[in-house]
Amino acid sequence: MPESVTGVTVPASHRDLLEQPLYGHLATIRPDGGVQVNPMWFEYDGQAVRFTHTTKRQKYRNLAANPVCAMSVCDPGNPSRYLEVRGVLDQVVPDPTGEFFRHLSIRYGSGDWIPDDAADRVVLVMRLTGFSTQ
Amino acid sequence: MPESVTGVTVPASHRDLLEQPLYGHLATIRPDGGVQVNPMWFEYDGQAVRFTHTTKRQKYRNLAANPVCAMSVCDPGNPSRYLEVRGVLDQVVPDPTGEFFRHLSIRYGSGDWIPDDAADRVVLVMRLTGFSTQ
Repeated sequence: MPESVTGVTVPASHRDLLEQPLYGHLATIRPDGGVQVNPMWFEYDGQAVRFTHTTKRQKYRNLAANPVCAMSVCDPGNPSRYLEVRGVLDQVVPDPTGEFFRHLSIRYGSGDWIPDDAADRVVLVMRLTGFSTQ
Repeated sequence: MPESVTGVTVPASHRDLLEQPLYGHLATIRPDGGVQVNPMWFEYDGQAVRFTHTTKRQKYRNLAANPVCAMSVCDPGNPSRYLEVRGVLDQVVPDPTGEFFRHLSIRYGSGDWIPDDAADRVVLVMRLTGFSTQ
């Protein structure tokens, strides 16, 4: 059954792509009008998508200037099956102990550790506004 | 050794990610100011990146209105290793027989076939203007 996510229904047929520890390719718009896209760890709680990031990087500056974003996730067993979620940066939550980084690192099989840049770490919270699938 | 690509040097350390038949996550800007990102087949000739697409889809409308784009490719053996190339749509080449689709389909192991929408098929040619790696 489809699930309502802040007004957006992610179809059950593709929800597994948000639930597995897959890499999401997150696209943002640069202040110069260009577009940027990079792979990211993420977690989905049925309502929002959360990323670990820092306040010192280009993607943070992009989202601070323009909150629109979108993320593409492929099924590794069938790359032509994918989910794109579109949305906006809804919250930036300080993570000065790096705890959310640590949580995602464990989730993605990269071990239990805290990064050197923990003091600058934030959780980016993406609210979903649309999607597409194939 | 780095290779010069229309003024952009793709480092040899990551050039393999453009040479293998990996999925590229192509980001474009929508006319409403949103951002879109989807996995795509592509081919790189050392100068440009080429995609098969049709004139009937949203991504084509996005690029017709705003030629900026960027593509993210992960190393499937080490997803934290990636290449992002940024650029602009430089040419749209009609492909009414679907020959370039067929070429990419064979390259990606999806078989030798011509799609039903061949009459609308085009080759999108992306000129590179920048990159980032990890």
